[in-house]
Amino acid sequence: MVEDVTKTRRRAGGRSANRRGRSPGIEQLPWRLPKNTDRPTEPLTEEGVARIHGAAMRILEEVGIEFLNEEALELFRKAGATVEGERVKLGRDFVMEMVAKAPSSFTITPWNADREIILGDGHILFGAVGSAPNHLSLKGGKTPGSHAQYRDLLKLTQAFNCIHFNAGYPVEPADLHPSTRHLDALFDMLTMTDKVVHAYSLGPERIEDGMDMVKLAAGLDEDAFQSQPHMFTNINSTSPLKHDWPMIDGCLRCVRRGQAVVVTPFTLAGAMAPVTLAGAVAQSVAEGLSAIALFQYVAPGSACALGTFTSNVDMATGAPAFGTPEYMRATQMSGQMARFYGLPMRASGSCAANVPDAQAMWETANALWSAVQSGTNFVYHGAGWLEGGLIASPEKMVMDCELIQQILRYFEPDLVSTDEDALAVDAVAEVDLLPASERHFFGIGHTQDRYESAFYRPFLSNWQNYENWHLGGAVWTHDRASATVDRMLEAYEPPGLAQDRVEALEDFVARRKAEGGAPTDF
Amino acid sequence: MVEDVTKTRRRAGGRSANRRGRSPGIEQLPWRLPKNTDRPTEPLTEEGVARIHGAAMRILEEVGIEFLNEEALELFRKAGATVEGERVKLGRDFVMEMVAKAPSSFTITPWNADREIILGDGHILFGAVGSAPNHLSLKGGKTPGSHAQYRDLLKLTQAFNCIHFNAGYPVEPADLHPSTRHLDALFDMLTMTDKVVHAYSLGPERIEDGMDMVKLAAGLDEDAFQSQPHMFTNINSTSPLKHDWPMIDGCLRCVRRGQAVVVTPFTLAGAMAPVTLAGAVAQSVAEGLSAIALFQYVAPGSACALGTFTSNVDMATGAPAFGTPEYMRATQMSGQMARFYGLPMRASGSCAANVPDAQAMWETANALWSAVQSGTNFVYHGAGWLEGGLIASPEKMVMDCELIQQILRYFEPDLVSTDEDALAVDAVAEVDLLPASERHFFGIGHTQDRYESAFYRPFLSNWQNYENWHLGGAVWTHDRASATVDRMLEAYEPPGLAQDRVEALEDFVARRKAEGGAPTDF
Repeated sequence: MVEDVTKTRRRAGGRSANRRGRSPGIEQLPWRLPKNTDRPTEPLTEEGVARIHGAAMRILEEVGIEFLNEEALELFRKAGATVEGERVKLGRDFVMEMVAKAPSSFTITPWNADREIILGDGHILFGAVGSAPNHLSLKGGKTPGSHAQYRDLLKLTQAFNCIHFNAGYPVEPADLHPSTRHLDALFDMLTMTDKVVHAYSLGPERIEDGMDMVKLAAGLDEDAFQSQPHMFTNINSTSPLKHDWPMIDGCLRCVRRGQAVVVTPFTLAGAMAPVTLAGAVAQSVAEGLSAIALFQYVAPGSACALGTFTSNVDMATGAPAFGTPEYMRATQMSGQMARFYGLPMRASGSCAANVPDAQAMWETANALWSAVQSGTNFVYHGAGWLEGGLIASPEKMVMDCELIQQILRYFEPDLVSTDEDALAVDAVAEVDLLPASERHFFGIGHTQDRYESAFYRPFLSNWQNYENWHLGGAVWTHDRASATVDRMLEAYEPPGLAQDRVEALEDFVARRKAEGGAPTDF
Repeated sequence: MVEDVTKTRRRAGGRSANRRGRSPGIEQLPWRLPKNTDRPTEPLTEEGVARIHGAAMRILEEVGIEFLNEEALELFRKAGATVEGERVKLGRDFVMEMVAKAPSSFTITPWNADREIILGDGHILFGAVGSAPNHLSLKGGKTPGSHAQYRDLLKLTQAFNCIHFNAGYPVEPADLHPSTRHLDALFDMLTMTDKVVHAYSLGPERIEDGMDMVKLAAGLDEDAFQSQPHMFTNINSTSPLKHDWPMIDGCLRCVRRGQAVVVTPFTLAGAMAPVTLAGAVAQSVAEGLSAIALFQYVAPGSACALGTFTSNVDMATGAPAFGTPEYMRATQMSGQMARFYGLPMRASGSCAANVPDAQAMWETANALWSAVQSGTNFVYHGAGWLEGGLIASPEKMVMDCELIQQILRYFEPDLVSTDEDALAVDAVAEVDLLPASERHFFGIGHTQDRYESAFYRPFLSNWQNYENWHLGGAVWTHDRASATVDRMLEAYEPPGLAQDRVEALEDFVARRKAEGGAPTDF
């Protein structure tokens, strides 16, 4: 299916959308929800899919999954599962019956409805880097994350039309007190961006506060809030085969209030999962489905996506690697499994590189193209990730957005049109009549009519020849990215959340701070 | 189809092949002829393919192609084509009848038969950068190409198992006299590498000397030489719609002596071809098929591949761009057309970047993945290209080989195996029985048995965490690449062409130099 680009362009005309020509800092593509029109790359045969499914079911039936959450255990008992201590064994019929209740696509609507996103239905959407403990910039080097850096990365997230959602805190604002950090962080995210937000499942207070703040920002009552997803949470399992208490608790709270959850096992093959990819994917599927089955039992039809984070370790050092051939194939295989279960699929942009250099970009290009190839709907960490997720980098975010924009352009249907205008036989004949020395296409009407929009226009790539590039200062890409960061921060415009809602959020934060925020001793 | 990796590994045991553990300078994958097992990405419907074919045929029938070659014009007249001056109009029936004579795959066998390559039959093979006039290294900056640089790039071409063939001179040895340059250059290529060589179609002397030297290096008589391809030539058309004299002359000489030709129109959309991709691809197909039809008329069944070099220009400056979304789609569309005509397909690794930095690698990753997606058989300029082909860079070659190796690994069938061992349910159950604090897969037999070969091992990527990377000198990728270049040049080993053949080549070169080489005034 091909998206109506005109329609998405019109949608982008809301109060906060950035249109070409008045974007902050750079000329960029308009906001849109791109569809992935490529047939996915499918390394597994139908039988291979069935075999991985069978292995996942055997894990669920014979080995079981630990749920360190008493409420979940009680629910599983009620559902008729075999519960041995904290170990839950699930029959495949129950799992498949529950998973079948989950929608194959759903929307998440933030306070600015123009920024509504659709997970599934052939879309591929990109989020900023999430949850990095550290920050690296060319000027500042590597430091633990700070509130100021957090706010700058939110500004970039907002400024780039190709970033569709916040994927958690782009960097941990470690200088904010842990008990109240989530209040300040979400206040910033809701006032400095108008894109979908994520709240962490790290204790009841944090996730409930998150939902309450999203509700206030959108000016909704509880019924309207619960009527559809307005935010989401993402959890990782504790591989192998374990779900921890706060993650399950947070997801249960979300689905009960109508909000979306993404379950993303983090199965590093050879470390927390089998060294063989099919095994790592099977384990990931088992871990993911066990949680989704629970959430569907509690809230049938609730919005759940299946995540994948299957990569490999460097067998020499045990260090995780990303954007590798194994990562690409695991992602493609996971995409096949998600389609088999009829669930929206989450994957990631990622790399192991420590600085925004050549390696960072070949690894990230591999990861992002594997997201495309796998039919991934929701690309976490799409922009700004370094060092296996331990570093958020503004320069890397700018580079990644250049690549993401190219993926958006790649999916524009006019590129592959074969209508008469596109075939251009008349243009070829017209140029052929020109004197031999002038036989080029620059000047003819067919070219001039399409001059402005024919090709992707980069904001960061330098396409000058060497001599002009050298005259311009011979600036390498990472340094150009650094300058672009400055320009975009300078030009940042807040999305304009209505003043009464800002005040409602301020009041909420003040009250919850007075109450002590969230306990920090769990 | 899945390649028998064992078989190719055994083949690599020849006198000059580099096996894991005794490779010069780095640990690398063994020589192999990888097969592309992915279903191609096909942006065109069947009707879209038919429409581009129809446009190409209209160009050939109604507009025609200029052949600035009297012999070609005479041949076309004889074949019944409409020849008006230097303009040839070709009926689609004739073109399709001729193209159908071309094989869908063929082999090229260099003097070391262990380095035989297969063009087509599902293979994807990679060549070094070709024909760059300039050289850039981190130490030496940008300079016109020299003989010393040429020889160093040959050493790297030989040393990397993932480079399957020489794609012309990696850099122009501009300090050698043009009349005799081809003699020295081919002598070096044939003695310093044992991989398939290319000779330029730049006048009868150069191409005939090239064939004679390949024959001498392989120790063949003329009959044996002509019995199958032992080398190839690649030509570009002079777009729009023109074939120049020396290119057609060289190809005619090649096919008459049983050697392979690759016809690669260089159709920059918006400059030398329509601004719309379907039009640029149609023109490219028309230019390519017109030449291939001629070669099949002269030598039915001769080895011909269809090349694509359709990219776009920066409409602001007219500068060519590579590795763009438009480039990727055009390559995929061209792959569909090549399959429609049953011809092996050539594409390229390419970028517009001027230095081996982040942009260079996202553009090159885009280009190389589009070669994979398009079912390309023969990737020219796979390693070492910068500045739209105006620069050859040893550091870039090393980086590209890291990425190419990952593509080779990506196609190894064990990655996507779903046999019982790969599903690893028993391994999951085994780890589950370990004490909670030891529940990981590092130590179990399933992991240990696969420890050595489970994952791709990089030679250039740094997967250390930031702190260890920093302790190791905080070396960015381009600087690590520079050190790798030094290490590989140091460890280079000549492939050991037999002394009598070296002497035969020396005698040939001496005689042809005494005769004056090739005229340089055309």
